[in-house]
Amino acid sequence: MKKFSNMKYVPLMLFQLILMALFFVFVRYGGEKHHDIRGFEGTHVMIFVGFGFLMTFLKKYAYSALGFNWFLAAIVIQWAFLCQNFYHMQDMKIYATKETILEADIMAATVLITFGALLGLASDLQLLFIAVVEVAVACANFYLVGDIFKAADVGGSIGIHAFGAYFGLGASWALKPHHKKTTTNPPPSTSPTVDLSGPTYVSDVTAMIGSLFLWIYWPSFNSALTTTNSEYQRAVINTYLSLASATVTTFVMSSLVSHNRGKLDMVHIQNSTLAGGVAVGSVCNMHIMAGGAIAIGIGAGVLSVLGYRYLTPRLTKLGVRDTCGVHNLHGMPGIYSGLLSIAFAAIATKEEYGEDLSAVFGAMGGEEGTGRPAMTQALNQLYATLVTIVISVVAGAVTGLFAKLPCFSPLKDKEHYDDDVNWELPE
Amino acid sequence: MKKFSNMKYVPLMLFQLILMALFFVFVRYGGEKHHDIRGFEGTHVMIFVGFGFLMTFLKKYAYSALGFNWFLAAIVIQWAFLCQNFYHMQDMKIYATKETILEADIMAATVLITFGALLGLASDLQLLFIAVVEVAVACANFYLVGDIFKAADVGGSIGIHAFGAYFGLGASWALKPHHKKTTTNPPPSTSPTVDLSGPTYVSDVTAMIGSLFLWIYWPSFNSALTTTNSEYQRAVINTYLSLASATVTTFVMSSLVSHNRGKLDMVHIQNSTLAGGVAVGSVCNMHIMAGGAIAIGIGAGVLSVLGYRYLTPRLTKLGVRDTCGVHNLHGMPGIYSGLLSIAFAAIATKEEYGEDLSAVFGAMGGEEGTGRPAMTQALNQLYATLVTIVISVVAGAVTGLFAKLPCFSPLKDKEHYDDDVNWELPE
Amino acid sequence: MKKFSNMKYVPLMLFQLILMALFFVFVRYGGEKHHDIRGFEGTHVMIFVGFGFLMTFLKKYAYSALGFNWFLAAIVIQWAFLCQNFYHMQDMKIYATKETILEADIMAATVLITFGALLGLASDLQLLFIAVVEVAVACANFYLVGDIFKAADVGGSIGIHAFGAYFGLGASWALKPHHKKTTTNPPPSTSPTVDLSGPTYVSDVTAMIGSLFLWIYWPSFNSALTTTNSEYQRAVINTYLSLASATVTTFVMSSLVSHNRGKLDMVHIQNSTLAGGVAVGSVCNMHIMAGGAIAIGIGAGVLSVLGYRYLTPRLTKLGVRDTCGVHNLHGMPGIYSGLLSIAFAAIATKEEYGEDLSAVFGAMGGEEGTGRPAMTQALNQLYATLVTIVISVVAGAVTGLFAKLPCFSPLKDKEHYDDDVNWELPE
Repeated sequence: MKKFSNMKYVPLMLFQLILMALFFVFVRYGGEKHHDIRGFEGTHVMIFVGFGFLMTFLKKYAYSALGFNWFLAAIVIQWAFLCQNFYHMQDMKIYATKETILEADIMAATVLITFGALLGLASDLQLLFIAVVEVAVACANFYLVGDIFKAADVGGSIGIHAFGAYFGLGASWALKPHHKKTTTNPPPSTSPTVDLSGPTYVSDVTAMIGSLFLWIYWPSFNSALTTTNSEYQRAVINTYLSLASATVTTFVMSSLVSHNRGKLDMVHIQNSTLAGGVAVGSVCNMHIMAGGAIAIGIGAGVLSVLGYRYLTPRLTKLGVRDTCGVHNLHGMPGIYSGLLSIAFAAIATKEEYGEDLSAVFGAMGGEEGTGRPAMTQALNQLYATLVTIVISVVAGAVTGLFAKLPCFSPLKDKEHYDDDVNWELPE
Repeated sequence: MKKFSNMKYVPLMLFQLILMALFFVFVRYGGEKHHDIRGFEGTHVMIFVGFGFLMTFLKKYAYSALGFNWFLAAIVIQWAFLCQNFYHMQDMKIYATKETILEADIMAATVLITFGALLGLASDLQLLFIAVVEVAVACANFYLVGDIFKAADVGGSIGIHAFGAYFGLGASWALKPHHKKTTTNPPPSTSPTVDLSGPTYVSDVTAMIGSLFLWIYWPSFNSALTTTNSEYQRAVINTYLSLASATVTTFVMSSLVSHNRGKLDMVHIQNSTLAGGVAVGSVCNMHIMAGGAIAIGIGAGVLSVLGYRYLTPRLTKLGVRDTCGVHNLHGMPGIYSGLLSIAFAAIATKEEYGEDLSAVFGAMGGEEGTGRPAMTQALNQLYATLVTIVISVVAGAVTGLFAKLPCFSPLKDKEHYDDDVNWELPE
Repeated sequence: MKKFSNMKYVPLMLFQLILMALFFVFVRYGGEKHHDIRGFEGTHVMIFVGFGFLMTFLKKYAYSALGFNWFLAAIVIQWAFLCQNFYHMQDMKIYATKETILEADIMAATVLITFGALLGLASDLQLLFIAVVEVAVACANFYLVGDIFKAADVGGSIGIHAFGAYFGLGASWALKPHHKKTTTNPPPSTSPTVDLSGPTYVSDVTAMIGSLFLWIYWPSFNSALTTTNSEYQRAVINTYLSLASATVTTFVMSSLVSHNRGKLDMVHIQNSTLAGGVAVGSVCNMHIMAGGAIAIGIGAGVLSVLGYRYLTPRLTKLGVRDTCGVHNLHGMPGIYSGLLSIAFAAIATKEEYGEDLSAVFGAMGGEEGTGRPAMTQALNQLYATLVTIVISVVAGAVTGLFAKLPCFSPLKDKEHYDDDVNWELPE
């Protein structure tokens, strides 16, 4: 049995070897194409330092937050690279460039958002299983959104953020303890380990490392896949302004809804400040005006703080636990961004966008009269948003159900939020 | 009364909404102009991670340091964007580019330096009030320095660092407790909260995150607003060398002035190492020679450590508290840089600078004989330095006096340096 | 005596002044040449934040880790700049560009790797003495590798990583306590300070800051000195993939070799994950295929974890202490990369590399028939690897012997791993 514990990651090693073989067969260097892609290094910081440290806020789960974030992202970027480029192979070959690598990095965010919902609730093997399945589904959904609906989603608020959040909520629902046959058992909510579900003074400080780096590089993230320089600059400016106004709004709202004489809640500050980046994601390269970007950020701050304060406790009672509150940071702001993209697509005109029209809305450009009308584009933005939510919730729930199999070593209640399960800890 | 506490940031929300309206009215996208500005991401890291974490060194003020740093910067970058560009509107419109956004980021540093002087001494509402006023004054001063005196100040040592420091010292002087009518009260210096004014082992480690990122990206900061490639490269190299020699000198000096067998003081290491970046700021794009950059850094290290060791305690006794010692990191090194800029302007020649002359000294270039003589430029550097000091001290003191109004909820002595005033803290 | 302690860094100040004088005499600005070098900022983050924080894992040595890392790097980048460019002066002048500054930054890594071996074991003066000597020898060796053998080593796995590690092991061997004349003394391994040689929960979290930033910017580091865009992109992609697979492998192996039911060891996670970056360093710009990069990373993860688990304890018993296990992160992976470079050089052809052949293998390019044959290049890669190991071990041991002189204040056993020796600590 002890021997078996040591071997627990061996199936993953086999998966790593299969990935290696697939890379040998399918992947070739892309020469100098896209060597000057923007946003690569900043996105890389967000994935590994940003998501990793943001999740260190728990008392005794920092090793797992940082370690599994890294572990998951390292396997996911290889797997996502293959899944994403599977849809765009040329002569049965995938050409690796900084851009295709960056897209794999971005896809890693999906899995890490899901990890945020399940933080401290799922075992390492469950997380790895969920990650591998999620990537395959998310890449298929991403293909639907981008290539079939041809929806605009440059910052991935629909395809990455909303998908990751609702997949996570679906999985969380499926993983919840159920079938309480004996009523004499104490309810799970009063389990003795509940004291590990909060922060310490220092863990909230280290979580700010993640939060701030996510915030800082969000303009790089949202603008990374833009093509023209004016589209790029618009994406940077809009994201920057939306983040700034969401941050101000978060402080105001956190104080406003406080139980305790207007005191600020670190959970809001660490998370809702970032909702401005998600909310503006799908529309940041559009002509939304600088004032519009600020307005979007204000809405995101309000939405996200209210979500943390009033919605998350209700969802938890319904059995949908969400440790990091990804529903308030990625889920609802992602839908909000999807809805905004419908509105801004509906009013987009060639007059306003000029040459950038086809850069922003791939299907609307081209010669006069050959492109898709604005209303059709708006409808497709709607389809993309709806389809993403449905696929992510359902796939998340189904994956979560499979993850309950004993082979994935589900955690007992008393093992929640505890590094001791997986790590050698200093005395 | 409890309700009132929850509403304390509502006036700020109104200010945020006014900013939004002003952006709708005045701000338009700048197309692709300046999309390739350098130093944007690095400066962004300095403002939010650098300044924020540097100020986490106190025992129980890390939430406030990180949170208010973020809050202040998020409101200031929007407000500073408008204040700065107010002086350069075209057809009553402001065109947003990465460059104008970067300049707003840089202006945020001014406010954060002032925050450093007042760290733990001013309430949240006082800080917000001071920030809003300071930005308006600092932008006017910046216009004087750059557009009226046409002074060279590429790294902002005069207009940003010295201004922020002396504004902060002025405000600190005004905010000091005074009119002690009863002599039976214990003096403030022996208040029971004095134990919160120091660091813990861990808080000094997290402060190093800020210090190191400031140091690392300082060359990006100082060179961000250069125009030619050779000017840019000179600014990077000079800043890099000045920082390196200031760092070496700081260690030597810290040991030399130690009370305790040459032991190093973390306050010096976290701060004086950075003085090299301030000291070289105004002259880093000039022909100061690589050896000159090293010499400037050595001087900065000596000046800053001596300031921390001997001057700050004296200023504190005079009622000018300076929690982070910004006078030693930004104030004196800023004046030092201003003095250096006078000297290097006085000896600047067309022969040495070639085409870069007008890039470095805007008023000296142009056709033979049409530019400003070197001595006139030197005089204007002097004016810029003097005017900045006078305006910042006076405006800081006046703003500080207004900030004492009860509506800004001044802190009681026992509330100093304490996160508990504003934050929900974990047990 | 107390006075003497305060003066301990004065000789270093003299060295700093000599460096300043040498810069005045020899260094001139390089104009705009190489102003657009890649990898500068990322490498800068690795040196100061990456190496610094990675070494904060000890219980009570974080100030020294961060402080001396900074101190050493600040003096070394100036000194290395001169030592490196001494071999390439034009008209007795050195032209400073971002590229030559970047090369000095890279050379600082050598010294910081050596610092990792000696962490907590050598005094500040010993470290400074070792650093100054090591730079001179390492730059000479770098000249041998690059200019005499014309070996390909773009990521510095041979000239930087292996050199730094084996120099450190040589010095560690020399510095070990010896000549135990009385057998009644307790053996050093049971000294009462042994409890400082481990981490705390929080120190392992701050160490992850360093580890993750090293990982994130390693592709920038390895690709920084590439010349063509396709060579650059290959170096980024290969490093990225090798790091990813090394990370996955590290988790698998750490669990596999665990004493305690498959629990993960933070030492492995913080270090062996990075071995993929070292292992691919010398060959990352070669045509190794994406699958090959993954394979190399897998090998690095296996090698490094096994080294930490089985080899380091044996070396320690032999008197070669290695606090950070640099042998497993930089030493063996560096040799591994050297061996790979022999193999890939042997099979390099003009057909496969095209125009990039001379970019990757400087001596193999040029007109048909004028370049060096592949087998000759492979032999020179072998020479470079062997010469580096021999020079670094011998020079490290000799330097370590000199460092035992009383003037460098060697530490007593009870002073090991203790910030209290050099720092004012908060109560």
